[in-house]
Amino acid sequence: MDEAEHGRDLALAQEPRVTIWNEYRHEKSDEEVAKIYPEGIHGTLAAMLKEGGFEVGTATLDEPEHGLPDDVLNATDVLLWWGHLAHDEVSDELVEKVHERVLGGMGLIVLHSGHFSRIFKKLMGTTCDLKWRLDDTERLWVVAPGHPIAQGLGEYIELEEEMYGEPFDVPPPEELVFVSHFGGGEVFRSGLCYRRGRGRIFYFRPGHEENPSYHHPDVQLVVKNAIRWAAPTPGATPVTGHDEPIK
Amino acid sequence: MDEAEHGRDLALAQEPRVTIWNEYRHEKSDEEVAKIYPEGIHGTLAAMLKEGGFEVGTATLDEPEHGLPDDVLNATDVLLWWGHLAHDEVSDELVEKVHERVLGGMGLIVLHSGHFSRIFKKLMGTTCDLKWRLDDTERLWVVAPGHPIAQGLGEYIELEEEMYGEPFDVPPPEELVFVSHFGGGEVFRSGLCYRRGRGRIFYFRPGHEENPSYHHPDVQLVVKNAIRWAAPTPGATPVTGHDEPIK
Amino acid sequence: MDEAEHGRDLALAQEPRVTIWNEYRHEKSDEEVAKIYPEGIHGTLAAMLKEGGFEVGTATLDEPEHGLPDDVLNATDVLLWWGHLAHDEVSDELVEKVHERVLGGMGLIVLHSGHFSRIFKKLMGTTCDLKWRLDDTERLWVVAPGHPIAQGLGEYIELEEEMYGEPFDVPPPEELVFVSHFGGGEVFRSGLCYRRGRGRIFYFRPGHEENPSYHHPDVQLVVKNAIRWAAPTPGATPVTGHDEPIK
Amino acid sequence: MDEAEHGRDLALAQEPRVTIWNEYRHEKSDEEVAKIYPEGIHGTLAAMLKEGGFEVGTATLDEPEHGLPDDVLNATDVLLWWGHLAHDEVSDELVEKVHERVLGGMGLIVLHSGHFSRIFKKLMGTTCDLKWRLDDTERLWVVAPGHPIAQGLGEYIELEEEMYGEPFDVPPPEELVFVSHFGGGEVFRSGLCYRRGRGRIFYFRPGHEENPSYHHPDVQLVVKNAIRWAAPTPGATPVTGHDEPIK
Repeated sequence: MDEAEHGRDLALAQEPRVTIWNEYRHEKSDEEVAKIYPEGIHGTLAAMLKEGGFEVGTATLDEPEHGLPDDVLNATDVLLWWGHLAHDEVSDELVEKVHERVLGGMGLIVLHSGHFSRIFKKLMGTTCDLKWRLDDTERLWVVAPGHPIAQGLGEYIELEEEMYGEPFDVPPPEELVFVSHFGGGEVFRSGLCYRRGRGRIFYFRPGHEENPSYHHPDVQLVVKNAIRWAAPTPGATPVTGHDEPIK
Repeated sequence: MDEAEHGRDLALAQEPRVTIWNEYRHEKSDEEVAKIYPEGIHGTLAAMLKEGGFEVGTATLDEPEHGLPDDVLNATDVLLWWGHLAHDEVSDELVEKVHERVLGGMGLIVLHSGHFSRIFKKLMGTTCDLKWRLDDTERLWVVAPGHPIAQGLGEYIELEEEMYGEPFDVPPPEELVFVSHFGGGEVFRSGLCYRRGRGRIFYFRPGHEENPSYHHPDVQLVVKNAIRWAAPTPGATPVTGHDEPIK
Repeated sequence: MDEAEHGRDLALAQEPRVTIWNEYRHEKSDEEVAKIYPEGIHGTLAAMLKEGGFEVGTATLDEPEHGLPDDVLNATDVLLWWGHLAHDEVSDELVEKVHERVLGGMGLIVLHSGHFSRIFKKLMGTTCDLKWRLDDTERLWVVAPGHPIAQGLGEYIELEEEMYGEPFDVPPPEELVFVSHFGGGEVFRSGLCYRRGRGRIFYFRPGHEENPSYHHPDVQLVVKNAIRWAAPTPGATPVTGHDEPIK
Repeated sequence: MDEAEHGRDLALAQEPRVTIWNEYRHEKSDEEVAKIYPEGIHGTLAAMLKEGGFEVGTATLDEPEHGLPDDVLNATDVLLWWGHLAHDEVSDELVEKVHERVLGGMGLIVLHSGHFSRIFKKLMGTTCDLKWRLDDTERLWVVAPGHPIAQGLGEYIELEEEMYGEPFDVPPPEELVFVSHFGGGEVFRSGLCYRRGRGRIFYFRPGHEENPSYHHPDVQLVVKNAIRWAAPTPGATPVTGHDEPIK
């Protein structure tokens, strides 16, 4: 099969509306991080997605309502989430709203240290804990060739990155797309797919703020693929509660 | 293969220590329910399990610490949970403790209307909502023949029961053991296996308080099988946090 | 979320190239079947898919090479398969070729009595056996709301159909989309997703030749959704065999 | 929870009857291998299991009926399979019989180069291909702490071994217990659980004939745990074929 020659790809007829949520603290307080992401991690991701034809907005922790008032959240098909230092500053109210939106169908892509975000822990029901260490070499192997999120990739992606090691305390993923090899001796399930309610969730490991991973073309490709994969599917609203016999 | 002749069965060399938690309100306020379960639902289940050789304790909502002080919880291998009217009266503190124990390896068996319990919703990360209607005929088909939880059963179990209907808003189960057929036209995934942390969780649908399902020998067999399946597995405590390279 | 108003749907930018394989025997020998499917089951499906914008070809058992010479098979993105009376007449050679193509990324949609086809049994590794009975009422409940294959459906699809009953001897599906309720008392997992190699496989239960199910708009919608879901994903060809250390 | 103090473990009340099948060619033709396994790989495994209280038999390729006549196969609860050089010499008839026995409930543990055995490929439905290289360091990380097959292990097992690398062309496992890290840069899903029919299958990666892995106490522990996990579950024989309505 030669899809390339046939020019086939799995782009959707209409790309999803994306909102990128970023804590946006490291970039303002750490010069080294600011050099890598002068417009913030969200700025780098937004520029890349706009160039790819997506409709993109951004939101950050220190904006009113953390940048996600109802009208923004309700017009978002897929939400990206990067946080690290200040998970606890995200309001109860927003966590509840995002939770409800995901169960209602909105896609959610949780990036790197977002594994400890309140919304991810609430959706997973576990601690989401792991091992970590700075300054390692990560090789993300594709273990699900043919998966839409691996579209267009080679056999692996290689990055200079923070190490995350197993055991990763999350529910067994419904689909496992990447497994990472670290130079220091650890492995990590680094691309994980979940369905919760009508929504789809993808956890993607790379993205330590001191490494330029979101500038890497293959990391960018994974983010784009994951957005398409996580786009909501229109369909009947589930009916629950008291019910009459059908006939 | 004729296991029966060979006398083989999967009983453990040492049966797990079980605690049955029951809300225990219907039985005290509703005469009809009291006739079916004069010692409470927990009493019926405890008697059956003791006869089966298990070490069993019980706990109810209105006891101090809801009947689950630390020494009881810490000496429990598998916890059964039945609740309905008063999920919200269970304390935050107990929900947190049970959650931590399950992630640490304790088995949890959630029964019937326990689908809306705080601990089940916290572990699942979803609404756990469903359809319902009283007074129907349920036929629980075994869709995983050979699964330890279906040990010794025939093709299906038939009960007079409350109906629960899809969509059941839970994560896709890791193993699906039973699917129910209801006379009124609905279906329901009625025996669901999950792993969370080091613990195993089984949701089992039957057990409406106005029906005598926990007196049914096949329902009792499922409960016993599920307890053995959910028994904790000794092993290394997971190591998380900052980590040195291995070599 | 109101996807409908936003006009969003998950159609691909370029629809996959579909080939419909049909045994095409009942339609030629049974007058009642011929009335329902005068151009054959493949003809009805092809007309519906062409109208939906897909590039469609058909192939039948009694054509040379069963209608699937290499150039046809190699230009097929998603293959549909309906067979019943003559599974054993399909050549070893074709079974091997289709198997290789699926592992290489081609989507496969197996319809109704195709559960006993040689290609499905080879891919599943099990007997694919089940219960059956003519003339029942089937209600296919959506148990995965939000799944792409359920896009645009209501809560269930109701059909006059042949009954298939559990236990269905297939591997546990990676995703379970539909569960059927039958009037006679049985249930069936009736929409099943699998990944094998780089290919995706969907088994869809309805389609007995004496019932007009493939004329039903919701059944047609499921077929279209499944084709998009099963479309191949371009990506690196997996590298296997002897391998040098990376550094 | 301190299971150790409580002396709890998940040994069954009656251990399963095990048969170890070994190709037994390397040990007879290669002096270095013979030094490591003087009684054959099967001999080393049998001695260890007997000491552990299991009822054990062995069978090898060059015996009549490959050492697995009907009476042996029918009295086997769990079959272990090691092969490498001569997969094609295993008869069609035996492959069919083992397949039928697994679907009927017999446990199957496939070891190392058995990934290319005819029985494993038939059960998986895929090529079971992978990357390989001699002489590497393997670290098998437990990614499912609390899983019965990881009972009693630490965080990882470290071995000098042949490398196997992803992509491993098998169906996504129902449970993933181990992920291996190799010094040369690869990863591998190295402990995989499947259910097929009423039987359970575990693939366990280590065991290259030139390395003494089956003498390693943790590898031996995994084999014993896997045998208990794969032991058949008595229960109703599935009923298939034509069926009358239930009422």
